[in-house]
Amino acid sequence: MKALRFENDCLKLAEISKPNFETEALVRVLQSGICNTDLEIVKGYANFSGTIGHEFVGIVEESKDAPGLIGKRVVGEINAGCGNCESCQKGDARHCPTRTVLGIVGRDGAHADYLKLPSRNLLQVPENVSNEQAVFTEPLAAAFGITEQVEILPETRVAIIGDGKLGILCALSLALKSRNVFLIGKHKEKLRLTKNKNVETVLVEDAKKLGKSFDVAVEASGAESGFEAALDLLKPRGKLVLKSTFHGAAKWSAWHVVVDEITIVGSRCGRFAPALELLKNREIDVENLISEQFNLSRGVKAINRAGEKGVMKVILSMTN
Amino acid sequence: MKALRFENDCLKLAEISKPNFETEALVRVLQSGICNTDLEIVKGYANFSGTIGHEFVGIVEESKDAPGLIGKRVVGEINAGCGNCESCQKGDARHCPTRTVLGIVGRDGAHADYLKLPSRNLLQVPENVSNEQAVFTEPLAAAFGITEQVEILPETRVAIIGDGKLGILCALSLALKSRNVFLIGKHKEKLRLTKNKNVETVLVEDAKKLGKSFDVAVEASGAESGFEAALDLLKPRGKLVLKSTFHGAAKWSAWHVVVDEITIVGSRCGRFAPALELLKNREIDVENLISEQFNLSRGVKAINRAGEKGVMKVILSMTN
Repeated sequence: MKALRFENDCLKLAEISKPNFETEALVRVLQSGICNTDLEIVKGYANFSGTIGHEFVGIVEESKDAPGLIGKRVVGEINAGCGNCESCQKGDARHCPTRTVLGIVGRDGAHADYLKLPSRNLLQVPENVSNEQAVFTEPLAAAFGITEQVEILPETRVAIIGDGKLGILCALSLALKSRNVFLIGKHKEKLRLTKNKNVETVLVEDAKKLGKSFDVAVEASGAESGFEAALDLLKPRGKLVLKSTFHGAAKWSAWHVVVDEITIVGSRCGRFAPALELLKNREIDVENLISEQFNLSRGVKAINRAGEKGVMKVILSMTN
Repeated sequence: MKALRFENDCLKLAEISKPNFETEALVRVLQSGICNTDLEIVKGYANFSGTIGHEFVGIVEESKDAPGLIGKRVVGEINAGCGNCESCQKGDARHCPTRTVLGIVGRDGAHADYLKLPSRNLLQVPENVSNEQAVFTEPLAAAFGITEQVEILPETRVAIIGDGKLGILCALSLALKSRNVFLIGKHKEKLRLTKNKNVETVLVEDAKKLGKSFDVAVEASGAESGFEAALDLLKPRGKLVLKSTFHGAAKWSAWHVVVDEITIVGSRCGRFAPALELLKNREIDVENLISEQFNLSRGVKAINRAGEKGVMKVILSMTN
C-alpha cells in the first residue's frame, strides 16, 4: 500500500505492507486531512518517524473484537491507551502514560491506504455527514474540547487569537456557547470565513482597542506573539487557553500571570462524540475551510501546499 | 518621621513628614517585615518610587470613617481600590484596575514610623497573636490564598518548589488541608523548619525520583528552573500554581503544557481574615522563620541582610 512517511528527516511517499492489525481493527482510509501538527512533525517536532496523519475517515475491513463495525464508515480517536492505567480505566486514553498516538507518537498514521487502531477508538459516522466533513471530526473535537475544560456561558467574553483552521474552528464552536466571541487574525479573507456565524472579527492591529475585557482568550495562532496578545486581552483572573503546540520554548511574562492571577489551561484533544453530533446537526459548517484536495500519490506536494500562506485545510483522497 | 525609601535607584533612610491621611486611617507602625518583593523593588521591579514595605502591624491613631478602630492594633490588606469598580463592589480590591498597593504601586509603604490605608483595609489583631506573628499575616494570607483558587483535599498530592519563606509558608498552610505535601528545596537547614508539621521534605537533586506524581505543584522558588521542575512533577491535567513574581521574562515548554493539558494558576494576594484565624488558633508556627530584627534606623542594613544567603524573615521595629 502507499503511505506518506517521514523518516530520517525526509518526507516521501513509500510503498509498504498493510498494517499487521492483530487485535486491533484494520481501516481502509477514504480521506485524510493535513493538520499543522503534520507540518510541525516534518520540521522535527515530537521526533516522530513513520507514516504521518491523524485526521481521517475510512471503512472498517477487519475487527476481531468488534465485528459489527466491519463495513462501517468510521472516524477514530487518535490516542491508543494501554487499557489498564487510571486514565484508561476511566475510558479516556488521552493521558495514558504509555499511549501511542496515530501519526504522532509510536504509531503509523492516516495518510496511507490503510491504518490500524483499537476498535474501541472508532466511531461510526452518521449517514448525513460527508467524507469531507467527517475528516474534520478530529480538529473540531479539539476545538470544542475547550468547553470540557473551561466553562463558556452565553455572557462569557471569549477572544480567539489566530485565524488559521484551528482558530476558526475554535471560534465557530465556542460561538455555539457564547454570544460574545471575537476572532482576531491577520487575514481579512480568513476572518470572512466566519461571516454570519455569531463571531465578531477583528484585525490583529486593532485588537489593543478591545482592552483587557475578556474572560477567556484562546491562543490558536501557534506564534509566541499570540501568547502575549492573548494575555493582554484578559481581565484579571481571566483564563488563557493554550491550543497550539509551539515548537521549542516560548518566552512569557510570568509576573503578569501572577499579578493578574491568570489561569493558563493547556488543551489538546477533545472527544469525538460531541463533534460528530455538531456535524450531524449541521451546527458547524466546515466545508468552506477546504482549500484543496490531492490524491495520496501526490502527498508530498499536498504537504508543501498545506504549508503555503493563506492555504486552509488540504485533504488527501485514497484510491485503494 | 523616618521612612525607608527607594528613589532614583537609591535606597536610603529618609526624614519625611507624616502621611496626609485625609479620608484614610493613620497607622503608627510597630513592626514591619521584609519580603522578597522589597528586594525585587530595590532591583527596579515595578518601577516603584517611595517608601517600601507592605507587611506590618501597627496602632490606629486616626480614622474619620471608622473611629472605633482608633487605638486598636491592626494589620492591613495591601490593595487599596477605588471602591466603585466591579472588583471593589464585590468587596475585593485586589484586582481593581486603578488600585494602589502599599509599598509596591503608587502608595508609600510600611517600613516607616507611620502609614496610611483606607480604614476598610484594616483588621484588628487578636490579643493572643504577638506583633512578630502578626507581621506574617500578609505572607501567610498569600500562601493560604492558594486554597481560594485550587481545591486541596486530604488526598491531593502537593509539591512545593522552593524552601524560602514563601515556600515554607505554602507547605505549612497547605499541609493543613492535605496529608500529601512535599517541600522541595536546596537547603537542609531550611527544609528542617517544617519538621513535625506533616510535610515531607526532599532535596532538589532527589526530586526527579518523585516522578510525575503530583496533582498540584507550587512554584515558590522565584527561579526559572523552579518552573520547569514544577512542570516535571505534575500528572497530566495537573495544576501548577505560580506564586513567585519572576523579574523579567521566563522561558518555558509550552508544548508540555498543551500535551499534558496542564493548568497554570497565577496567585498573588490572599485574604487576611483566614490567615489571622490560623495565627490565633496556633495552626501555623511562624516565629521560627524569623532570622533577625533591626531597628528601622538600620533599615538599609536590614534590607542587605535580608538578601544574604540562608537568611529567612528580617523584621524591622519602630521606636516612634
